[in-house]
Amino acid sequence: MFGFNYYTPTKVVFGKGTEMKAAELIREFGGKKVLIHYGGGSVIRSGLLKKVTDTLDNAGIPYVTLGGAVPNPRLGLVYEGIDLCRKENVDFLLAVGGGSAIDSAKAIGYGVTNEGDVWDFYDYKRQATACLPIGVILTIAATGSEMSDSSVITKEEGLVKRGYSSDYCRPKFAIMNPELTMTLPDYQTACGCADIMMHTMERYFTNGGNMEITDALAEGLLRTVMKNAEILARDPKDYNARAEVMWAGSLAHNGLTGCGNDGGDWMTHKLEHELGGLYDVAHGAGLASIWGSWARYVYRDCLPRFRRFAVEVMGVEPAASDEETALKGIEAMEDFYRRIHMPTNLRELGVRATEEDLAAMAHKCAVGVGGSMGSAKVLYEEDMLAIFRASL
Amino acid sequence: MFGFNYYTPTKVVFGKGTEMKAAELIREFGGKKVLIHYGGGSVIRSGLLKKVTDTLDNAGIPYVTLGGAVPNPRLGLVYEGIDLCRKENVDFLLAVGGGSAIDSAKAIGYGVTNEGDVWDFYDYKRQATACLPIGVILTIAATGSEMSDSSVITKEEGLVKRGYSSDYCRPKFAIMNPELTMTLPDYQTACGCADIMMHTMERYFTNGGNMEITDALAEGLLRTVMKNAEILARDPKDYNARAEVMWAGSLAHNGLTGCGNDGGDWMTHKLEHELGGLYDVAHGAGLASIWGSWARYVYRDCLPRFRRFAVEVMGVEPAASDEETALKGIEAMEDFYRRIHMPTNLRELGVRATEEDLAAMAHKCAVGVGGSMGSAKVLYEEDMLAIFRASL
Repeated sequence: MFGFNYYTPTKVVFGKGTEMKAAELIREFGGKKVLIHYGGGSVIRSGLLKKVTDTLDNAGIPYVTLGGAVPNPRLGLVYEGIDLCRKENVDFLLAVGGGSAIDSAKAIGYGVTNEGDVWDFYDYKRQATACLPIGVILTIAATGSEMSDSSVITKEEGLVKRGYSSDYCRPKFAIMNPELTMTLPDYQTACGCADIMMHTMERYFTNGGNMEITDALAEGLLRTVMKNAEILARDPKDYNARAEVMWAGSLAHNGLTGCGNDGGDWMTHKLEHELGGLYDVAHGAGLASIWGSWARYVYRDCLPRFRRFAVEVMGVEPAASDEETALKGIEAMEDFYRRIHMPTNLRELGVRATEEDLAAMAHKCAVGVGGSMGSAKVLYEEDMLAIFRASL
Repeated sequence: MFGFNYYTPTKVVFGKGTEMKAAELIREFGGKKVLIHYGGGSVIRSGLLKKVTDTLDNAGIPYVTLGGAVPNPRLGLVYEGIDLCRKENVDFLLAVGGGSAIDSAKAIGYGVTNEGDVWDFYDYKRQATACLPIGVILTIAATGSEMSDSSVITKEEGLVKRGYSSDYCRPKFAIMNPELTMTLPDYQTACGCADIMMHTMERYFTNGGNMEITDALAEGLLRTVMKNAEILARDPKDYNARAEVMWAGSLAHNGLTGCGNDGGDWMTHKLEHELGGLYDVAHGAGLASIWGSWARYVYRDCLPRFRRFAVEVMGVEPAASDEETALKGIEAMEDFYRRIHMPTNLRELGVRATEEDLAAMAHKCAVGVGGSMGSAKVLYEEDMLAIFRASL
């Protein structure tokens, strides 16, 4: 068991109609001029953006808007947002959307409050010392960015996808109305569930350090998401299932399910970042397509955890050997992915990668993590390549 | 399922030696002049207070000290603390101890920053609008006050024990070193475990509203505390068990295990407050001594939850009827109390109450809750009296 810091200052306001509290919450956290940052047209078509700007108008809070945050959000738009904030003296960011809009807002927040190129932080060159305060109206349950300390940005040049984490960017508030996720395409809902689970699984598969209380919370969370992901695959309009998944999404990535561990493994995420940068696939689907290959490559080096996962999360009956039990757990997880129509390899993901592509991704990944990384098993470039190959 | 707010801004710094970070954290949260508030002599005898004042001296942070917070902390000392803070221009409170020192500090914080008598807040007369920032070095895992929004104070005149809750008093940081709890008497350790579990059980036994994810977390937490409470009953020096219980204590009362419910039941706490006010018993022991009588009085009105509790938390095999299963769960809980040497009635608690005492407590309790309260079953004065009688 390791010592840990746990810091989740985000005020969560959860339930039907909570988006009407945006102005009140912005005021509570001192916002005087707001940039409303969102993604595509869905928040316009659904009427959500209008509803939000109406509440700000009524409260007399001035704002500017910037749309266009795309999945795997781009650095170019971040620069645009920084310029706009400076020009308009914006002191508060309101992200309306999912992880893309939130992560993009976080990068804008860093850029406005720190000198120099904001990409430096994502390129591991220096540390941020501040971020603009951020509020969130969440419309996609997936990344957990609404409570997390992390953001992931893609630089167009070379399609480099990198994450940067600091407590400065943790949102001040997160408005979560499960109804806002009802209009999401089924594929995106399933991608979100895969992403949510992976945030906790990355913290779960470690060699040493796990606390019992953390394991109990993690396992309960994973079982709950699985059950409700399957409900949503059948009935996307089930409010309770939407709510369970939405709240689990925040808890899966706010730090709770990693307390006392060694920091987690995170290699499935790192491998997926390369896929996402190169092929612009949905993050959750990318994770699902790689996880099985990663798991089969590393499970012998992390057997007690894979065995426990099989029994406690996947409900596998213990087999004659721990290896066998562990493998059954991995298979059960892939079966679950299939039931919610997630891919379990690159072909199913729709990616036709050449050996050169795989080698390039493995190389970029290894460079990105400084040579090697992982807790379940420490992976080097050759391991990364082997996992990419196995996932074809 | 109900909407909810979830707000836990406390920065938790958990692990061995973390008390050395007190000065750094006070500075991070803007403290310039500190009141160190503690309880009895144990923090002096253990050398902890000296260690803390040394780090503040080294950091050049001025402070004054005020000891004497007792279990069921008294209003008189709160007034004294308020006067001292005003005289010394204190702008930050550091509570070193358990729930008593923290709750007392919270009341002092309200008193310094609000006009008028601080008791008004505890007497339901008006709402606080601010509180001094508070940091905590926790030495007893029990009340969860280190992350919670609540504090409980006893007014000497009439021995009235009342709680007041607001987000203003949530500590800025909580330093938790499980080693600091090692010197606690075994009885206090067990009391703490009983208190921790009750914070989650009060949120668990409701009629309607519970989220699956919340249930999963609550059940995992309860099982973990039970297991480690029994380990500590055998081996009080087990660091890992101390750590599990300590972290569970914060999570049990920071709001996490109530998200989506109707607010919880809380009648066991209310009944115990009367016991604690009149007989000055340890809070956790008082809760344990009443819970079984409360549970048997209400379980038929909250049968699905009591059945689920029996199976998922206490590991009871489902019996022929839900009633039978529920009763087995209540019995299993009382067996657990006995295994950690907690009382299951007033006699074992060491309280010899007359019928007049019981009637007086039931009356004060009913007045305190405005006539009636409870979610598992709404209780009126006659119900409260019946439960007190059954717990003799």
